[in-house]
Amino acid sequence: MSAILPIVSAAVPTLLADCRAALGGQHVLAGERERDHWARTTLPSGTRPCAVVRPGCTAEVQAVVRLAAAARVPVHAVSRGRNWGYGDACAPAPGALLLDLGRMAAIRACDRQLGTATVEPGVSQGQLAAHLEALGGDWIADCTGAGPDASVIGNLAERGFGHSAYGDRFAHACAFEVVLGDGSVVETGFAGLPGARAAGVYKWGIGPSLDGLFTQGNLGLITRATVWLMPRPQARAMLLLRCERQDGVLPLIEAVRTLRLEGVLDSTVHVFNRMRLLGGVAPFPYGASDGSQALELSHPALVAALAREHRLPAWVASAALAGPPALVRASVGAVRARLRAEGFPGSALVLGPRRMALVRGAAALVPGWAGGARLRAQVGKLDLLWKLLAGQPDNGSLTGGGWRARRVQAGSHDPRDGGAGMVWVSPVLPATGAAVAEVEALARTVVHGHGFEHQVTYSFINPRALCGVTSICFDRDDHGQRARAVQCHDALLDRLLAAGYCPYRAAPMTVRRLWDHPVAAWDVLGRLRAALDPAGVLSPGRYLPSPG
Amino acid sequence: MSAILPIVSAAVPTLLADCRAALGGQHVLAGERERDHWARTTLPSGTRPCAVVRPGCTAEVQAVVRLAAAARVPVHAVSRGRNWGYGDACAPAPGALLLDLGRMAAIRACDRQLGTATVEPGVSQGQLAAHLEALGGDWIADCTGAGPDASVIGNLAERGFGHSAYGDRFAHACAFEVVLGDGSVVETGFAGLPGARAAGVYKWGIGPSLDGLFTQGNLGLITRATVWLMPRPQARAMLLLRCERQDGVLPLIEAVRTLRLEGVLDSTVHVFNRMRLLGGVAPFPYGASDGSQALELSHPALVAALAREHRLPAWVASAALAGPPALVRASVGAVRARLRAEGFPGSALVLGPRRMALVRGAAALVPGWAGGARLRAQVGKLDLLWKLLAGQPDNGSLTGGGWRARRVQAGSHDPRDGGAGMVWVSPVLPATGAAVAEVEALARTVVHGHGFEHQVTYSFINPRALCGVTSICFDRDDHGQRARAVQCHDALLDRLLAAGYCPYRAAPMTVRRLWDHPVAAWDVLGRLRAALDPAGVLSPGRYLPSPG
Repeated sequence: MSAILPIVSAAVPTLLADCRAALGGQHVLAGERERDHWARTTLPSGTRPCAVVRPGCTAEVQAVVRLAAAARVPVHAVSRGRNWGYGDACAPAPGALLLDLGRMAAIRACDRQLGTATVEPGVSQGQLAAHLEALGGDWIADCTGAGPDASVIGNLAERGFGHSAYGDRFAHACAFEVVLGDGSVVETGFAGLPGARAAGVYKWGIGPSLDGLFTQGNLGLITRATVWLMPRPQARAMLLLRCERQDGVLPLIEAVRTLRLEGVLDSTVHVFNRMRLLGGVAPFPYGASDGSQALELSHPALVAALAREHRLPAWVASAALAGPPALVRASVGAVRARLRAEGFPGSALVLGPRRMALVRGAAALVPGWAGGARLRAQVGKLDLLWKLLAGQPDNGSLTGGGWRARRVQAGSHDPRDGGAGMVWVSPVLPATGAAVAEVEALARTVVHGHGFEHQVTYSFINPRALCGVTSICFDRDDHGQRARAVQCHDALLDRLLAAGYCPYRAAPMTVRRLWDHPVAAWDVLGRLRAALDPAGVLSPGRYLPSPG
Repeated sequence: MSAILPIVSAAVPTLLADCRAALGGQHVLAGERERDHWARTTLPSGTRPCAVVRPGCTAEVQAVVRLAAAARVPVHAVSRGRNWGYGDACAPAPGALLLDLGRMAAIRACDRQLGTATVEPGVSQGQLAAHLEALGGDWIADCTGAGPDASVIGNLAERGFGHSAYGDRFAHACAFEVVLGDGSVVETGFAGLPGARAAGVYKWGIGPSLDGLFTQGNLGLITRATVWLMPRPQARAMLLLRCERQDGVLPLIEAVRTLRLEGVLDSTVHVFNRMRLLGGVAPFPYGASDGSQALELSHPALVAALAREHRLPAWVASAALAGPPALVRASVGAVRARLRAEGFPGSALVLGPRRMALVRGAAALVPGWAGGARLRAQVGKLDLLWKLLAGQPDNGSLTGGGWRARRVQAGSHDPRDGGAGMVWVSPVLPATGAAVAEVEALARTVVHGHGFEHQVTYSFINPRALCGVTSICFDRDDHGQRARAVQCHDALLDRLLAAGYCPYRAAPMTVRRLWDHPVAAWDVLGRLRAALDPAGVLSPGRYLPSPG
């Protein structure tokens, strides 16, 4: 199906025999079916590994890396392989030895006084949430929309972001254990000191701080990390800002920036556009359109009807408020005052637990002939967001990626099962209305020009920066759409870079285009890589250019 | 005076001639007086440079580093050289070429919409505060107690902390320009992309993040950084928690941790003990004691009298509250409720601008015979703290370091002028009462055992970690005290490390003892250093062990 070249080095058979000896035969999988399984992707094309090995502990990871380095076979490690839209479980190039760290799934420790959890790469965010709930629910972890099966470490190693005050995942994690390309292990922060008391609560350690070096790249594999947890708040509320006017996003951005800078809002704030919202609640109407054009352009009346049906305004912003009740109340007041001051042409809905229960109860009572099913679906979406803001991951947040997939994914929560295609182009913007207006115009033109809907979320990843995640959704089973998705990605990335907007995170197909631009210190990173991974065995082409 | 060996390499004369050619003769200072001046220190011993060069721009820094690398003469760069108690302007070893970056003192840009300032290393925190005030006072920068002359970049490169919500200085800075040991320049985050729009607002960039690598060490010299600013708050208050009981610090720590985790308090919270406070308001009473013993042990009645005179309880904690008025009020309520819940045996004083004005006015009216002078001094200390919390650095915060200095520093704000001796041992603790109790007992025993007062500040450098800065204050003119300070430092550090408490920051004398412990990834750091600085020219011995 996809453009996979089955390149397998001659050294592989010996390497696999050595891996079997080191790990046990049942943890080395080289069958065609397994290799195909791990080559699946949501991107236009994936890569097929030469085999999959499943180490059970750090020592086994070290052993495999050493064997692979000796055999000069690239190793690509995945925590749980759910890097949707950014490469999934695929190595940048075919033929790599895939290191599936999913067996290393222990929650090693939870400090219930300080609010920390020490996890292995195979620990999923669903597993962590359930564990914290079982411990009494006093602590919650930030979660992302990647679904319950996505790895906690996998996400923070890619510097993903979630929905809460700890939305910058990497900033709220420390004490990494890292396997280097020579098979040695390094611990960051204070973690290397036996009995270190503050290893789990202080990120920077002493001397140069290494944590950042081992994110987004191939300078090391994180095999353990401590993540910080938030206390279950005394009170919480979900803030939903809605506006019908397309240009309403500009005062919205200005207001939220001020509120975040003032400390009134401290969570990641996500601002979704209508087409992005529509992708989450409805499938692409292939009955009306063949998908060769952007639906907003080819069928504006249908889009308007769908928006009315699902009650989708031009923009919806979501934010979490949490803390002592009086503080949450005061924050709500400050939010309303700021929105008025900025002339926000929309509404601000504040939902607490009681109001959520009322809404759920009311929706349950509406009979089908009165639109009950549709109402319940809408409330279900609200509930999904409510849970995400409170650290409860849900598979429902993954549906948007399947917007243009024709196949039905009955019962599956893996977007790869249904032919869901998604490429995310995620530029970072200064959090100003002017920057959003510029990126909006630029992205809309490019995406529409390639026949896709302009689906975007602007997320406040900190008080003064937005990440504008543009989802290029396509049907992977449709050769034409797949080809257009690549062209659209390339054009959008090039235009954004030319305008000074660089992505915060990148799929291998994105990374390859970045190498021509000074968006990162490629030369210095190459020198560091040569020092840490002389054989160049770790994920060649993952963020860092390969030498030669 | 101090144990300085005037080691000067034979290559120095040629190097200096080359530097003169590159920078102009007036910026290369090799006179005895200049060298002595830069050898001054607050530590027990300093080091004398072979010369001082003062580059005016990044290109000149690169030129000097290249020349020094070719000559194999170590280079030690200082921003403004005010690293009090951690090495001041001194290189770890004598004979280095001192790179004084003080001439590079431009505030390159201030973004008044996004709240960022791009500064050079010579920019002092006083200069930045004055600049922001002149721009209208809409933005404020976090500041530390190191005085107005201390460098903004110097402090963040050492990962110092201040008093506000942006107290973790390094976490609130980005887009570094760095000169490496081979003379090349690297920019971090998105700063390397010409016209990058988000370089100043997003820290991590794309690919491995390098910022941390260039802090606390000698892997590069930061020649430019963008620091984040806080909006002037609509309302602000200073929270002062006081308690008379020695064990009152335990519930205090528990309460503040909860408040910080809940997001009620978002500033760095400092908790000072009585002897630390006393050092800030009075000189050591040499009339009563010769300083050979800890004053608390040798003269408890005198200490009690001084504490009464200056109204110093066992502990004082300070925190800044800032934001919309209703939020500040709600926060105050939440603080009071939490203190009650923890059974904090003390008082909580909340001072806003009006109350501060009232206190100042009332103090001004009290006549001298009624204790007016003393009252005004106390209000002056309050005012100092009030200013620090609002980003206004003040020389008054430096007086504590001179506690045991016999010489008068008339008119000088440089602690080195008055023989002020200070060594800071700064372990990081989990923010629990139990950890504080353990470190308290340990440190008190060691410090008292060496005849010094136990002066400590526990600072919440994040919601779950404390930095317990123990100030070993001594009279540099007193040979005996100086020798004891070294012994005390060594013993305290060893005991803390054995108990699992590692410092967050270190003077060269501290660093040398850390090399025997796995508190940092020394081996990996050494490999990175070899890759970036093959000649090993940048500050050998600063954090990283030198090879061989």
